[in-house]
Amino acid sequence: MASESALVVRIAVFNGPNLNLLGQREPDIYGTETLAAVERMVREHAAAMSVEIDWFQTNSEGRFVELIQEAAGRVAGAVVNAAAFTHTSIAIRDALLAVNIPFVEAHLSNIFAREEMRRRSLLADLAVGVVTGFGVGSYELALRGLLQHLRRVES
Amino acid sequence: MASESALVVRIAVFNGPNLNLLGQREPDIYGTETLAAVERMVREHAAAMSVEIDWFQTNSEGRFVELIQEAAGRVAGAVVNAAAFTHTSIAIRDALLAVNIPFVEAHLSNIFAREEMRRRSLLADLAVGVVTGFGVGSYELALRGLLQHLRRVES
Amino acid sequence: MASESALVVRIAVFNGPNLNLLGQREPDIYGTETLAAVERMVREHAAAMSVEIDWFQTNSEGRFVELIQEAAGRVAGAVVNAAAFTHTSIAIRDALLAVNIPFVEAHLSNIFAREEMRRRSLLADLAVGVVTGFGVGSYELALRGLLQHLRRVES
Amino acid sequence: MASESALVVRIAVFNGPNLNLLGQREPDIYGTETLAAVERMVREHAAAMSVEIDWFQTNSEGRFVELIQEAAGRVAGAVVNAAAFTHTSIAIRDALLAVNIPFVEAHLSNIFAREEMRRRSLLADLAVGVVTGFGVGSYELALRGLLQHLRRVES
Amino acid sequence: MASESALVVRIAVFNGPNLNLLGQREPDIYGTETLAAVERMVREHAAAMSVEIDWFQTNSEGRFVELIQEAAGRVAGAVVNAAAFTHTSIAIRDALLAVNIPFVEAHLSNIFAREEMRRRSLLADLAVGVVTGFGVGSYELALRGLLQHLRRVES
Amino acid sequence: MASESALVVRIAVFNGPNLNLLGQREPDIYGTETLAAVERMVREHAAAMSVEIDWFQTNSEGRFVELIQEAAGRVAGAVVNAAAFTHTSIAIRDALLAVNIPFVEAHLSNIFAREEMRRRSLLADLAVGVVTGFGVGSYELALRGLLQHLRRVES
Amino acid sequence: MASESALVVRIAVFNGPNLNLLGQREPDIYGTETLAAVERMVREHAAAMSVEIDWFQTNSEGRFVELIQEAAGRVAGAVVNAAAFTHTSIAIRDALLAVNIPFVEAHLSNIFAREEMRRRSLLADLAVGVVTGFGVGSYELALRGLLQHLRRVES
Amino acid sequence: MASESALVVRIAVFNGPNLNLLGQREPDIYGTETLAAVERMVREHAAAMSVEIDWFQTNSEGRFVELIQEAAGRVAGAVVNAAAFTHTSIAIRDALLAVNIPFVEAHLSNIFAREEMRRRSLLADLAVGVVTGFGVGSYELALRGLLQHLRRVES
Amino acid sequence: MASESALVVRIAVFNGPNLNLLGQREPDIYGTETLAAVERMVREHAAAMSVEIDWFQTNSEGRFVELIQEAAGRVAGAVVNAAAFTHTSIAIRDALLAVNIPFVEAHLSNIFAREEMRRRSLLADLAVGVVTGFGVGSYELALRGLLQHLRRVES
Amino acid sequence: MASESALVVRIAVFNGPNLNLLGQREPDIYGTETLAAVERMVREHAAAMSVEIDWFQTNSEGRFVELIQEAAGRVAGAVVNAAAFTHTSIAIRDALLAVNIPFVEAHLSNIFAREEMRRRSLLADLAVGVVTGFGVGSYELALRGLLQHLRRVES
Amino acid sequence: MASESALVVRIAVFNGPNLNLLGQREPDIYGTETLAAVERMVREHAAAMSVEIDWFQTNSEGRFVELIQEAAGRVAGAVVNAAAFTHTSIAIRDALLAVNIPFVEAHLSNIFAREEMRRRSLLADLAVGVVTGFGVGSYELALRGLLQHLRRVES
Amino acid sequence: MASESALVVRIAVFNGPNLNLLGQREPDIYGTETLAAVERMVREHAAAMSVEIDWFQTNSEGRFVELIQEAAGRVAGAVVNAAAFTHTSIAIRDALLAVNIPFVEAHLSNIFAREEMRRRSLLADLAVGVVTGFGVGSYELALRGLLQHLRRVES
Repeated sequence: MASESALVVRIAVFNGPNLNLLGQREPDIYGTETLAAVERMVREHAAAMSVEIDWFQTNSEGRFVELIQEAAGRVAGAVVNAAAFTHTSIAIRDALLAVNIPFVEAHLSNIFAREEMRRRSLLADLAVGVVTGFGVGSYELALRGLLQHLRRVES
Repeated sequence: MASESALVVRIAVFNGPNLNLLGQREPDIYGTETLAAVERMVREHAAAMSVEIDWFQTNSEGRFVELIQEAAGRVAGAVVNAAAFTHTSIAIRDALLAVNIPFVEAHLSNIFAREEMRRRSLLADLAVGVVTGFGVGSYELALRGLLQHLRRVES
Repeated sequence: MASESALVVRIAVFNGPNLNLLGQREPDIYGTETLAAVERMVREHAAAMSVEIDWFQTNSEGRFVELIQEAAGRVAGAVVNAAAFTHTSIAIRDALLAVNIPFVEAHLSNIFAREEMRRRSLLADLAVGVVTGFGVGSYELALRGLLQHLRRVES
Repeated sequence: MASESALVVRIAVFNGPNLNLLGQREPDIYGTETLAAVERMVREHAAAMSVEIDWFQTNSEGRFVELIQEAAGRVAGAVVNAAAFTHTSIAIRDALLAVNIPFVEAHLSNIFAREEMRRRSLLADLAVGVVTGFGVGSYELALRGLLQHLRRVES
Repeated sequence: MASESALVVRIAVFNGPNLNLLGQREPDIYGTETLAAVERMVREHAAAMSVEIDWFQTNSEGRFVELIQEAAGRVAGAVVNAAAFTHTSIAIRDALLAVNIPFVEAHLSNIFAREEMRRRSLLADLAVGVVTGFGVGSYELALRGLLQHLRRVES
Repeated sequence: MASESALVVRIAVFNGPNLNLLGQREPDIYGTETLAAVERMVREHAAAMSVEIDWFQTNSEGRFVELIQEAAGRVAGAVVNAAAFTHTSIAIRDALLAVNIPFVEAHLSNIFAREEMRRRSLLADLAVGVVTGFGVGSYELALRGLLQHLRRVES
Repeated sequence: MASESALVVRIAVFNGPNLNLLGQREPDIYGTETLAAVERMVREHAAAMSVEIDWFQTNSEGRFVELIQEAAGRVAGAVVNAAAFTHTSIAIRDALLAVNIPFVEAHLSNIFAREEMRRRSLLADLAVGVVTGFGVGSYELALRGLLQHLRRVES
Repeated sequence: MASESALVVRIAVFNGPNLNLLGQREPDIYGTETLAAVERMVREHAAAMSVEIDWFQTNSEGRFVELIQEAAGRVAGAVVNAAAFTHTSIAIRDALLAVNIPFVEAHLSNIFAREEMRRRSLLADLAVGVVTGFGVGSYELALRGLLQHLRRVES
Repeated sequence: MASESALVVRIAVFNGPNLNLLGQREPDIYGTETLAAVERMVREHAAAMSVEIDWFQTNSEGRFVELIQEAAGRVAGAVVNAAAFTHTSIAIRDALLAVNIPFVEAHLSNIFAREEMRRRSLLADLAVGVVTGFGVGSYELALRGLLQHLRRVES
Repeated sequence: MASESALVVRIAVFNGPNLNLLGQREPDIYGTETLAAVERMVREHAAAMSVEIDWFQTNSEGRFVELIQEAAGRVAGAVVNAAAFTHTSIAIRDALLAVNIPFVEAHLSNIFAREEMRRRSLLADLAVGVVTGFGVGSYELALRGLLQHLRRVES
Repeated sequence: MASESALVVRIAVFNGPNLNLLGQREPDIYGTETLAAVERMVREHAAAMSVEIDWFQTNSEGRFVELIQEAAGRVAGAVVNAAAFTHTSIAIRDALLAVNIPFVEAHLSNIFAREEMRRRSLLADLAVGVVTGFGVGSYELALRGLLQHLRRVES
Repeated sequence: MASESALVVRIAVFNGPNLNLLGQREPDIYGTETLAAVERMVREHAAAMSVEIDWFQTNSEGRFVELIQEAAGRVAGAVVNAAAFTHTSIAIRDALLAVNIPFVEAHLSNIFAREEMRRRSLLADLAVGVVTGFGVGSYELALRGLLQHLRRVES
């Protein structure tokens, strides 16, 4: 990452299936804010850190794969909340392996306090790090962690 | 479910991958009737029970998720034959958790008499009940069971 | 099954251990109707379909085996709610293999939403189909499904 | 449990298969006293604690289930030594779930020091507690533990 | 075993659930001879070897346990074909441990060529030996093997 | 396959997720040639063998299913490189079962020398054969193998 | 144990990690009495049985090991409530193997009704017996059971 | 097997590794008779049944495979005591599959009463039957069982 | 948490075994900063957020348990980096259950990219959330996430 | 591999146990051609590609190991059809590791469509690639794949 | 290791829990010599090889971790007999990873001939080598092996 | 072992498959010395300890078995480096059980730091002890350990 591009860093945020229902869906687990509200908050936090956000949501594994492919070369890093695909998609794993963008895995809920099938991530070993359980705060923390990582690698 | 809406109950029927091939596909397992014929029969049975049917088929997991999302608030219940996705899709599980529509899981073939990988359902514990093995009859039975459940809850 | 015997079809219903407590036992799982009430309802539904019912309940695995043996040649099919024996009895499996009567496995509760040990059935792969989770409605659905199967095979 | 019934508490003791052989059977594991002698001792201990004992032994799982069913409403609690059925009978588990009598699981031998198959109990998670390994003393300890539990709940 | 009792040796043969259907039940696996015919053949073979046979069949696990208990002290050994109970009954294991009669495990079919659940025997490690797969011939071979064992121990 | 159709055989080649990145993606595993170059080479080899190629790539499981469905009746066989879907998609398995086209499973990399999760194929037992590890050569070998198979079956 | 020392028997009670919080910690599982109160009750019961108690609590596995070592030769038996160490400490198992003091394993809560990880004890197969689930009553029952064992062995 | 060849039936007996040590090796498990003595006894029994024996022993898996191959077409059946190879050799399984000679698996010791690794046979599901635990008597019983099988198939 | 105490929030940070070696230990995994430097940075970040830090490090599981116990009632929350104990200590799990302080689990390295044994946490399901993989940044992110959680609960 | 040696490349083909029976052995799985015929075909294909073949077959694991050892330095690569040894021989794995000759694993049948025990190869992760399921065509395909690999490495 | 320091090599010997009981503890497994006697013997052997010994024993995992930490930079290598901690302590694994001292794992008893839980070592893959089963001789052999390793690396 | 034979002790050293390649094979794992050089060193060490060595190497499991059989009665003990056979051969286990010669298992490499499949030894529980990871030094250490054992047993 050349030092001039650091003036403004572009980060993609990928949101997986059913996150479009945020605010309606199981509010005791996922909170009451809508995805649009979350996006707004993340953009504000990002702006304060000289970060521009590319924001995506899709319910389709194939589209998720392509969003990652298209981000290659255009963003410096990514926050990945693949939701249910976290536990089932080797295709997304392969896309992340292929584009080789540094990313942080983020989850709204604490996946370790839920069903057994949600404890295994097919992506986590490829990530810079994982942030899970802080509701919409997970995005902000993931973003911060990613930026620190990018600066550490850059320097 | 308010009592006036009970005059006509709307039920969604979701059909998963390869069910569009019905009649051609492995007829000794799935029978010789096409999906269109099945739809016709289900609509007839439904009409006799004052039920209107929203009928869907898709080969795409992402589309399946969205069909469920779109049904929220519009139908009183659902019959879900997720076919192969039954065993692999946490995204569909999450969609069903999110919209919280009462549903019955249905399968044409007896999934317990087939390959080991078909014995685990990622949806069944969320369902009102499961009906499996009666060919196209599984739809009718699922519909009946669902209606009984809706009436029991309503009263 | 010769066509004249089809005038009235005789179906056995086998009920396993603790079903004699129905109505008293864990009513939030099994409902508040007694087994006698269930029997009455099943007989009514059956009569409407020109079916005569042989109704059995036993808490003994050995007796369950013998009831199945004795039904051979006397009934055209069976509804089997083996309750706890579903998960532990190879002897009942062997009886069903031996008499070779078409049967439907039925359960009041949704066995997929309960303890892990109740998810494995030692009978299901031998059944025409499985109906689970509809309370006493499971019997009616199982009966219907069984009749459809018998008619399909017969024709 | 109303306070007047506390004048004399009635407790059932259920003994499972092969316990009728006590005294003859593997004396290095199970001791040399007969079941009749054990019954006598338990009744004496019980009398000293104002407890009346209903004592049962059966080698039949079905009979064991029915003994539990019949005890419902007649006893304040139970000591359950289901012997081999401890590890294989979901039917007895269901009977205990159905009648909902507080019970203590008891074993003569230390089941944790024997074959692997004896380490898993299908009943223990439903029990007030478990006492294992004290020979005939296990009954007395189980009885005491059960009484303490009944008094604690009562007060 | 004192030498005079060797003039005539008494051997019990225990037959488990569904063996009363022999000849009718799955003839391609179990053959076409009835259990009565098998009994006759075994008695003839036995007579030729100066053996008297106590012959039992039951479909009840509890009764099977008691038949073993009652045989204690009355027979010199046993042939045990526990059928389905072979794979599920710790109670029968305990009965055999308790009476401590030398026994041979026998099966008509080759249990190793059938469903996985039939490959594990809960009795076999207690047996003198196992004979499986020879149809009704398994009984004769088991009887011979048992007699050789008794003579070897005796001498 | 009638002998006249053998003048020119039509074969479908199905490529799964992330194969569109070939040449960019992990070149030490997948080589430096693009998918277009691979397609060109395969078409050349095919032409030399009087084979016409229908070439497909998709990142979507649902689209993959439909491509297979649409090929039914139009091609004599297929080469299937389902990439990540190989290990996770029962829907593709079902599509292949449904259309019943003879196919060869092919992989660029040696899937047995990679992560454990890539060692299990949900398709391989349905295939004529499997070719894995030869980079783009895997396609040519798969094509040859498939043609030999078609000719053997035809004759 | 020589007969004169039987005038007063000395028994050690070992309490593992977090038991010092008793009364504060998860009172619905562990009750509201403090460890000091429990100690007092145990000493009273013990005194009534001519038993003197050495009472220990530690949160350190290493200290637990040494307390057991130091007890060797000074006590006739022990009650061991190793709490969380029950499931993780081979070192404590080794200490108990080394000093070879007869001991009873005791737990306040019913460990079989809690998380899976608490169902395996690394100590239980070495114990005289196990008492679990009676709250502070478990100590008294364990003490009684231990004394009976010591007297049986002695005589 | 043509009827004239039945005048004298030729049976191969294959003995696996370390059986050449019989009589010296672990006599409490395997007995005190040498392999030569066993061979003599078997030949005598065989002669009495108009059977000629081809007797082999080898410590080499490759040689064992070839002995089976060479027997093809020359013997009517075989007794196979593959000893340790029973549990580890797919090559011997393949040889038996290839030559397709009916065979009985025999073992001197009761393999179900020994180490876990000896409970799995890679050959048993291909056998007519299995005889295990009768010492040298296992050979005689296996031979008898095999002859009965050959006669039954022949007739 | 009363609003006046919110003027300054006190948070405990617990560091497990070998973290005292930070800076020396496997610097490619854990970075080159010492634990003292990390403590300084965390205190600075904390001060900027009106947080006071109680900082602890121990190599002893027992001491770790007691540090948690002593923090009860004195801090509003905790950051827990139990290092190796994360995967082996039920005692620390029990301490966290007992004191019931909201806590965030933090790790310097990405535990999902290391040995299998480090993928299972015995604490994570009790945590508010988990932050892993950001080196010393994990502490700052955990602190932020914890504060957000405390404010959300408080309001 | 120096360019002059490329004029004629020498390749070893190793055939494992029971392949000498080819043509006789389970012809529906392995085809009807003898190993000699296969050898002839392979030599012809090889000649057309300027390859000389060293052809080996053995039923002995030890001999297989030595054939590989002796090939070191004499051949440029190998085709390995270890048959049953594929799944059981670490010794052959070690030989291949030791001589470090590039090799292709080949199988006549599709090992993924057979018994579970044939799905695991102890050699495949060391191979250039794997070809399975094409009958004798597997050898030709393996040879081609190997040559392409050798040329790619060479250039 | 500089050549002058090689004049006298300093080696740490770490002894884990319960080894302080040596000579008293299970003498048939661990022998009758005390740890002090063992220390004396090891020092003598060491002196003869120009080695100075730092000898440690602790029952505390935390102390064990710190002893290893303190040895860093002061010794050229270590002999580690972590006793029970071998199988349970990732903290000790981490300490050894952190200090990166070459070490040999040693055990008095043959851990492969004991309970299953003792067969897995969490340290062995980090060691130069392992010596187990030679009683106190294991220390001498481990010391020799370690010295040979140090000399080989040094040269 | 009679005292006169102790003047010179004869020890067999058995070397398994591929050890004949020592020096060539994977030198970073196995070192650069040839097996002949190793043999020379071992003989020298042995001579210094009044030990005569019988040295064997074979790539054949069957030959390995027979070498062990032939050593019975001729040597006082053995060093067994069964290489790959360590993990797969029950036949060698049986040979060692049969001849009952005290032996030490030795390995050049640290088998615990390699592939999972090399961590399980089928011989180790029968051995006096195990020495692994010291390269050719493992032989010397194994020899010393064995001699100490023989002297301890002898005295």
